[in-house]
Amino acid sequence: MTDISYRRTGKGQIKRFAKLQMKKYRDREGLFLAEGLRTVTELLDHMPDESFLTALFVEPGQLQNIPHRKHLREKIFLIDPDEGHRLSGTSTSQGIVGIFRQQSEAAFFDGREKSLVIALDDVQDPGNTGTIVRTAAWFGVSAMVCGPGTADRYNPKAIRAGAGSIYCVNHYGVDNLQQELEKMRKRGFTIFCSSLRGEDFRLRDAWPERIVLVIGNEANGVSKELTGMADRLVAIPRGRGEEGVESLNAAVSAAILIAHLALGY
Amino acid sequence: MTDISYRRTGKGQIKRFAKLQMKKYRDREGLFLAEGLRTVTELLDHMPDESFLTALFVEPGQLQNIPHRKHLREKIFLIDPDEGHRLSGTSTSQGIVGIFRQQSEAAFFDGREKSLVIALDDVQDPGNTGTIVRTAAWFGVSAMVCGPGTADRYNPKAIRAGAGSIYCVNHYGVDNLQQELEKMRKRGFTIFCSSLRGEDFRLRDAWPERIVLVIGNEANGVSKELTGMADRLVAIPRGRGEEGVESLNAAVSAAILIAHLALGY
Repeated sequence: MTDISYRRTGKGQIKRFAKLQMKKYRDREGLFLAEGLRTVTELLDHMPDESFLTALFVEPGQLQNIPHRKHLREKIFLIDPDEGHRLSGTSTSQGIVGIFRQQSEAAFFDGREKSLVIALDDVQDPGNTGTIVRTAAWFGVSAMVCGPGTADRYNPKAIRAGAGSIYCVNHYGVDNLQQELEKMRKRGFTIFCSSLRGEDFRLRDAWPERIVLVIGNEANGVSKELTGMADRLVAIPRGRGEEGVESLNAAVSAAILIAHLALGY
Repeated sequence: MTDISYRRTGKGQIKRFAKLQMKKYRDREGLFLAEGLRTVTELLDHMPDESFLTALFVEPGQLQNIPHRKHLREKIFLIDPDEGHRLSGTSTSQGIVGIFRQQSEAAFFDGREKSLVIALDDVQDPGNTGTIVRTAAWFGVSAMVCGPGTADRYNPKAIRAGAGSIYCVNHYGVDNLQQELEKMRKRGFTIFCSSLRGEDFRLRDAWPERIVLVIGNEANGVSKELTGMADRLVAIPRGRGEEGVESLNAAVSAAILIAHLALGY
């Protein structure tokens, strides 16, 4: 079987796109970078339309694994391992690096009566941010809003952890999370904060229809300003047994709370 | 304030302990390696007794951050950045690498009537394995049993994700997970498998008192052999909205199910 031929990349491309490892350049270009076959394939599957793929850099040995490669050939460029390394800045590119377009952001407004919004306050680990995006997408949350300290949702590690879900959930960043939460409260949202000092999350008196759930920093929790303004603090109780670990992973506690609130059980 | 003096490390130590990056040497020595101040501190806090710390390699600038450093001084060795790099095999050592002793393993037997055991079938990502250890510790599960394909619980990435919890939960490995589950069934355990094709996990008819929950590989789920022998398959439903992502992260789905079963709600 003969395959069609693909173009070689040029130095200018590698230099330009390698900069997408840095947030400043991602923001400036409105693009992001995804490494590895699995992550790239998931993004190809979930992007809203083809225009969201800007370019796909592939080592020849990996070409056969790219889905729809003939269809995408105008955007595919062949690279050698050294170029893959320079693009990804790590050894994890596996010979495939995709350049994708970010979705345009818009401050959230959801007309639906019932809404669950997730707010991330200083969730610094990009793996956790990406995993929370994926969980939010699974449970169909209305939006995710990220405060200034939170890891960039387009960080390559967040993209990998997100497993293609970055296109499946409405998300946006704000410079001032407290102000954003005040705005949402005026629109009828009740503010829940995850907190070790909160009430048991399983207490199920009637949940309000519109909830913002604030997830905080793994080490320090949600900031004082935000817990201070919250309507309710919710905690995940320990199981039986001795006092063991101090806390759950941030993406894990987010997931347990999101599952509970989204499924309404 | 004058601090006491600490010894320099020798080449033999660095060479010997750097090998703990590899499972073969971890198994042979019964030791494991932990990188970074936070992880090391968490392990120091949770180890059953002081004998579990074998050695602590520290760059001079980091000494002041080590808790109980005077007390531990016989086990502390000063290193330079190059030695830290060789020990950790990465750039993430942050100037602190601890060598700790593994707990002795024993096949699980819990006399208590009510028990929740977690079984990991081919959970390949060490970050997920470590996060599940941490979740299991939080919820006080009785034991965690790992099949042959599962990432080593003592992998440095698993240790980091575990946040010191490796000492807080009873865990062991088996060569044949199916045989182990059969044994547990004979001891009165009901076998639950996480599966996308399972029944909604919230269906709460009376849970049995003794449950093994099997968590599978992120991409392929629990193996056919194990789902075939399971008493019940359980799934986490999606929230409302369009079909989005294909699945949840393995540690996230484990957490949602463990929380539900352990807290018994």
